[in-house]
Amino acid sequence: MSHELFPGIRSAADCVGWADEAWALMQRLYPVCRSITGDGVRETLAVVGERIALQLHEVPSGLPVFDWTVPQEWNVREAWIKDPAGQKVVDLRDHSLHLMSYSTPVHARMPLSELRAHLHSLPDHPDWIPYRTSYYREAWGFCLPHRQLQALPEGEYEVFIDSTLAPGHLSYAECVVPGRSEQEFLVFTHICHPGLCNDNLTGIAVATALAAALAQGPTPRLTYRFVFAPGTIGSITWLARNEARLGAVRDGLVIGLLGDRGPLTYKRSRREDAGIDRLAEHLLPQLAPGTRLIPFSPYGYDERQLCSPGFNLPVGRLTRTPNNEYPQYHSSADDFDLIDRQALAESMAACATLLRAADREGRYLNLNPKCEPMLGKRGLYRPTGGGHPGEFEHALLWVLNQSDGGRSLLQIAQRSGLAFDTVADAAQALEEVGLLRLHED
Amino acid sequence: MSHELFPGIRSAADCVGWADEAWALMQRLYPVCRSITGDGVRETLAVVGERIALQLHEVPSGLPVFDWTVPQEWNVREAWIKDPAGQKVVDLRDHSLHLMSYSTPVHARMPLSELRAHLHSLPDHPDWIPYRTSYYREAWGFCLPHRQLQALPEGEYEVFIDSTLAPGHLSYAECVVPGRSEQEFLVFTHICHPGLCNDNLTGIAVATALAAALAQGPTPRLTYRFVFAPGTIGSITWLARNEARLGAVRDGLVIGLLGDRGPLTYKRSRREDAGIDRLAEHLLPQLAPGTRLIPFSPYGYDERQLCSPGFNLPVGRLTRTPNNEYPQYHSSADDFDLIDRQALAESMAACATLLRAADREGRYLNLNPKCEPMLGKRGLYRPTGGGHPGEFEHALLWVLNQSDGGRSLLQIAQRSGLAFDTVADAAQALEEVGLLRLHED
Amino acid sequence: MSHELFPGIRSAADCVGWADEAWALMQRLYPVCRSITGDGVRETLAVVGERIALQLHEVPSGLPVFDWTVPQEWNVREAWIKDPAGQKVVDLRDHSLHLMSYSTPVHARMPLSELRAHLHSLPDHPDWIPYRTSYYREAWGFCLPHRQLQALPEGEYEVFIDSTLAPGHLSYAECVVPGRSEQEFLVFTHICHPGLCNDNLTGIAVATALAAALAQGPTPRLTYRFVFAPGTIGSITWLARNEARLGAVRDGLVIGLLGDRGPLTYKRSRREDAGIDRLAEHLLPQLAPGTRLIPFSPYGYDERQLCSPGFNLPVGRLTRTPNNEYPQYHSSADDFDLIDRQALAESMAACATLLRAADREGRYLNLNPKCEPMLGKRGLYRPTGGGHPGEFEHALLWVLNQSDGGRSLLQIAQRSGLAFDTVADAAQALEEVGLLRLHED
Repeated sequence: MSHELFPGIRSAADCVGWADEAWALMQRLYPVCRSITGDGVRETLAVVGERIALQLHEVPSGLPVFDWTVPQEWNVREAWIKDPAGQKVVDLRDHSLHLMSYSTPVHARMPLSELRAHLHSLPDHPDWIPYRTSYYREAWGFCLPHRQLQALPEGEYEVFIDSTLAPGHLSYAECVVPGRSEQEFLVFTHICHPGLCNDNLTGIAVATALAAALAQGPTPRLTYRFVFAPGTIGSITWLARNEARLGAVRDGLVIGLLGDRGPLTYKRSRREDAGIDRLAEHLLPQLAPGTRLIPFSPYGYDERQLCSPGFNLPVGRLTRTPNNEYPQYHSSADDFDLIDRQALAESMAACATLLRAADREGRYLNLNPKCEPMLGKRGLYRPTGGGHPGEFEHALLWVLNQSDGGRSLLQIAQRSGLAFDTVADAAQALEEVGLLRLHED
Repeated sequence: MSHELFPGIRSAADCVGWADEAWALMQRLYPVCRSITGDGVRETLAVVGERIALQLHEVPSGLPVFDWTVPQEWNVREAWIKDPAGQKVVDLRDHSLHLMSYSTPVHARMPLSELRAHLHSLPDHPDWIPYRTSYYREAWGFCLPHRQLQALPEGEYEVFIDSTLAPGHLSYAECVVPGRSEQEFLVFTHICHPGLCNDNLTGIAVATALAAALAQGPTPRLTYRFVFAPGTIGSITWLARNEARLGAVRDGLVIGLLGDRGPLTYKRSRREDAGIDRLAEHLLPQLAPGTRLIPFSPYGYDERQLCSPGFNLPVGRLTRTPNNEYPQYHSSADDFDLIDRQALAESMAACATLLRAADREGRYLNLNPKCEPMLGKRGLYRPTGGGHPGEFEHALLWVLNQSDGGRSLLQIAQRSGLAFDTVADAAQALEEVGLLRLHED
Repeated sequence: MSHELFPGIRSAADCVGWADEAWALMQRLYPVCRSITGDGVRETLAVVGERIALQLHEVPSGLPVFDWTVPQEWNVREAWIKDPAGQKVVDLRDHSLHLMSYSTPVHARMPLSELRAHLHSLPDHPDWIPYRTSYYREAWGFCLPHRQLQALPEGEYEVFIDSTLAPGHLSYAECVVPGRSEQEFLVFTHICHPGLCNDNLTGIAVATALAAALAQGPTPRLTYRFVFAPGTIGSITWLARNEARLGAVRDGLVIGLLGDRGPLTYKRSRREDAGIDRLAEHLLPQLAPGTRLIPFSPYGYDERQLCSPGFNLPVGRLTRTPNNEYPQYHSSADDFDLIDRQALAESMAACATLLRAADREGRYLNLNPKCEPMLGKRGLYRPTGGGHPGEFEHALLWVLNQSDGGRSLLQIAQRSGLAFDTVADAAQALEEVGLLRLHED
């Protein structure tokens, strides 16, 4: 049909070009030292803003946002440890994970025994650097491979962190693609993690690709809002500043962790059967056999806030292997080796499929509900009777019979066994001859 | 119990006599050239009217019925094709399927090349004549075996159809067996098909047998209405003329295709869990193991209209192999060879079982809902305690406990595992001692 | 946690001491000749009253209770049959089952042929004495082993029953352990059966142990009411006298038949998904793998009355092998050999588990429902981010996310896969910091 979103994107194979662009974007963003506030976030948004039109938001430190407060802004210029011989053995310049995020400034000398309390490592993965943060308790720390930690000689070390923790701003950005309706599809991705590739450069890159393609395509029915924000405090801040508008959110997806080799994993919204849950349940296994559908849980990414009971937004989450379920999670091993371009392309096709279907999905009203309308006089039925009707004629009958305002096109597709797009095409044909209209309450 | 419907009919074996009468009726009706209007319909109804009391209805051409219009009446006296040698190679007198129904009059000579556009055959079944109609687009055509079509020599053919398409009437008939209640059980069967045995002389014959037996038996609780009408336009017309009375339809069945060797197939109403759906689901597999229960779909017979969303009547459909699912469907191979008398008898037993159960089914109210009533003083409980109660005592307890106006006897039977008739007998006994009353809203 | 009920009782092994005490109580009660009224009931309650604080109730004969009337009081002093040789061949002193309960007084001589109509035996179990009653039809009778019956010589027998059937009282007793709330947990057990061990000395002994332990423990949330009453007429009488208070019954259990070697069997309330049903369904299989969960049915013990449609109380039933499902049921073979102390201990642990969980179970309200509250500042979250949260942190998130007043702690435990007690502990912690409150309507 002529007005559908993401024309030409039907499968992972159609997203290879997007995946290549995403890869390039991720490579550019990888070295940037991000946190929940600060210039690393701004730099990240600036790079994304070269590709899509972003509205930037700067929220001042100290602003109350529900039970929380926008924290001080954190920036860091330099951070290292010198061993007793004066050699830099840990240096932020080498890897953005070496410094615990939100570390307070320090310049001191101390014996290894005292330093150890500030060093984080992963004994089970001795070659990986862990990812650690201390946003809400003032502390400093370094992260390093366990093997390196164990090899450190006794003696006096010099520790230097040139960081600032001071009133400033929390930064986030939105890209809005307006549709014919004010009802919104929300895509949310977190931008706070430094030096981690799957978590979440993939989310940033996929959101960017979708927004760019939507902006170039036909006007959608729904309005699409992409939010790039730091995790937790970012979504809390966004919710606090947009509370009055949340009724417009008809569907939504939190996206991230979209590049590893695990299967696509859709996590249901807290409602469990929101429209987006049903679309994902029906369409993703068709697109990507092996897709996992998992129930809602209150641990994860920003669905924790979007689906808190006071909002309970119809927002699901799409990842590949979820947080905490792969060994490289939150460590330096979440790098480009973990990412598979084919998987990334499949994730993109999955997102495009969901957005396109959400744009067509709806409950319709049969305007001629008493008996079947005479389709023949409207050119929608074969003239000679007695033989077998085709799939499109079946779809017409199904849409007419079930469209009492209670069942959506997806539910009709499920009940009839017909493809969602065939049903949606039939609905469009019936709408064009005046037998059907969208019924939204 | 004394007042139940169809006493003595418990299984297919009890319907052998009915099946023999049905067979004779079908043989008499087979040669009649039926369509959706015309004298063939009237002749069919006249034959049925020799067996049961029919109210005939004649509805004038041109009457608007919802989105449709009652068509012109079609009658045909003669129709044939002569080959270049002047031999009649196709003749309506040989088989009523040879002429496309509603063919306009024609008398012309034309080469085979031109004639071919008017000839219908079944390449996959070269010995069978297909069934074709053109009710709503003026056209003419002949149907013939594909083998014969391929053997036709080139040359000039003479075509003659002495038909009339003119203002007249659409004919249908009703047989009503009044009950103690104005609530109705509707049995609907289509009468428009010519020269097809399973579809639908079986439906006509079964409906006739049921109506005849009901009229001779005890007064039922429900009122039973049998409608014999042409498919689609007949049910649309019936609905248009009876719209104000549809609230009385408590249960219903569309019946047809009841004689082939396939298993009984019950298709649910659009509601999926109407009373008749639950009765069929529970009782038919007991009567006929192997019975198929299939979901509603908007393709089929007059349930398409009766279950359109504006009416959504509690009407299911009983067939053996459904429309379009057996190769002989809508062809001359749907003849007496396709019919099995034992299958026909089983279909009759199934219908009788459903009507009888519908007549007993209902939601009751326990008039002594606080604690069990003392059954012993009413002669309904064994006097010596300590031993095991029998099945009927269990049924009494179940009916009393569950009859809060929300659960029906069938639901009680399902929940308790007791036979429906045992539960219904217990309800009758409790009603007789004043502990129970029917609760219908 | 500090205030939970039955501290230290987690499994059958923790109930061995209780089971020993129960065994002793059962041995003391076994010889007492009980019926639905009379001094045997009073003696039984007096023995129980030595262990727990009982309120005794005496209800006069002739009082109407719903559809029933409190019967005359029955007492018996002596009952025997002498054979033609003048030997006592059946004597109530030998076994309390020898006399049909509520036998009217008689002193007569009659031939065996006449006597036979008054003799009850079990041909399938020729060594067992059956249990028979005739509460509501005046009659007399003796019960004896079938083998003995068959060996009785012809001749004249002397029959003597020194019983009284006269206006008096029906006796029952309650033990109430008051809680912080007026909402009640009702434990109901029947006390009318003579000389039967599993049915129902086990129920009496388990209820006594639970009441004794509760009275010594911390003040519960709910009020616990234990009712010791004759079956059927006892619960009917109790309901009639407590009708105005039934709204306080939040949960309940009918208990009995708790000592045989069969698996624990929980029978659902008539509601099928009352709170107690859900607790039993979730917790009992964890405590005792092999536990059977069976649907409600209106045949059994006092749940017949408590769950009659006019009350429909949220009361389930806990037994081991249910009534009528073991061969020794209602016969002299229901003696101490049938009882297994380990099974009895398991039954006690099951009851304690249900009561404890019922006391914690509830629907809570998240008082900070918009986004997650900041747990760190309340000391409920680990300060360093990036690593894996523990089970208790997960429980905190689950309780906060799901506590919208609609889902109970049990439902949260089921949904999250976390242990019920972990979830309840999290709820308690959140309540203590003011983030949660109990939401009962």
